[in-house]
Amino acid sequence: MRISELSRRADVPVATVKYYLREGLLHAGELTSATQARYDESHVTRLRLVRSLLGPGALSVARARAVLRAIDDPPASPYELLGVAAEAVRRPVEVRPHPEVHALVERWGWSVDEDACAEHQALADALEGLRAAGFESPPGVLDAYAAAMDSVAEAELARVPFDSLAAAVRYVVLGVVLNEPVLLAMRRLAEQAAAWRQVQATR
Amino acid sequence: MRISELSRRADVPVATVKYYLREGLLHAGELTSATQARYDESHVTRLRLVRSLLGPGALSVARARAVLRAIDDPPASPYELLGVAAEAVRRPVEVRPHPEVHALVERWGWSVDEDACAEHQALADALEGLRAAGFESPPGVLDAYAAAMDSVAEAELARVPFDSLAAAVRYVVLGVVLNEPVLLAMRRLAEQAAAWRQVQATR
Repeated sequence: MRISELSRRADVPVATVKYYLREGLLHAGELTSATQARYDESHVTRLRLVRSLLGPGALSVARARAVLRAIDDPPASPYELLGVAAEAVRRPVEVRPHPEVHALVERWGWSVDEDACAEHQALADALEGLRAAGFESPPGVLDAYAAAMDSVAEAELARVPFDSLAAAVRYVVLGVVLNEPVLLAMRRLAEQAAAWRQVQATR
Repeated sequence: MRISELSRRADVPVATVKYYLREGLLHAGELTSATQARYDESHVTRLRLVRSLLGPGALSVARARAVLRAIDDPPASPYELLGVAAEAVRRPVEVRPHPEVHALVERWGWSVDEDACAEHQALADALEGLRAAGFESPPGVLDAYAAAMDSVAEAELARVPFDSLAAAVRYVVLGVVLNEPVLLAMRRLAEQAAAWRQVQATR
């Protein structure tokens, strides 16, 4: 198909398709003349993936490119691809030493054999936010959070669609980002329900 | 103490103390002359609470006032105070019917005997965000989230410091808001750790 049909099929403006081609996010079509190329279904699929990474996945072009490269040249274990995808959705943070978080991560069995300092830093910053507000998490609450997040991660990982690497990466990148508001809304509903059960019990 | 000392003790500028007095967030002091009043420890404590509600708690003045009123005139069960605090930290949303969320909330045993539509709407919006991105949560993932959030809520509720209503409300309001980034950072760390365990297992 020509670029105009590709644009229509994937619902992406022609100018944007050309931009993705220039940025290396979309593989080139087969040249049919000096100025025209032919595209196929693989381009439609890739365009949709690129759109979801840049749009709802909120990745930068550079990060999306790294994820797509990993899909095109996949690591030995598909699970390592998850690392690439997770890396791509990391919020940029200023990395400092954070012995407290390292100790927590050790305790929860979450230490990984690589430099995961950006994620550690996000937790360190969040805990610092609590402290700056003079808020002390009671003993046991962080451990309860850890157990809950372990079961969340296991449930998510068990359902990664590994039959397609592109689908797996899309699942991880979008799943991490888009499920955050879902989880937060559910936490508030669960808190409400828990408080309500207590109100009923004490009436 | 005079307003200048109160200001120093609570680390709040005098102009801000006067603003809180005008807004009814801080109870008036005992008048000692036409233009001077005397304040005591209860004012210091209240000022600190007001600051944490408006600052890290990110409440509006109107919402903080509602929470403080509930503390000053507490409901029969302290657990009902949690409802007031939870209500105060709700994000404003446009409320529409959301039968899907009502069905989910029924299934998880989270239905409460009051109008909780704002929170329901937040979940409906988050799920709609997934769908708009063409992202389908695999069966079982939402249920796994629900079970995890149940245990989070139970752990949080079990540790509410009910010996002081002001402390309880501060714990709930700040705990809901300030722990959100903690939980999200922990989810990402747990996902990383779960993927890493799989990489190790398949090597």
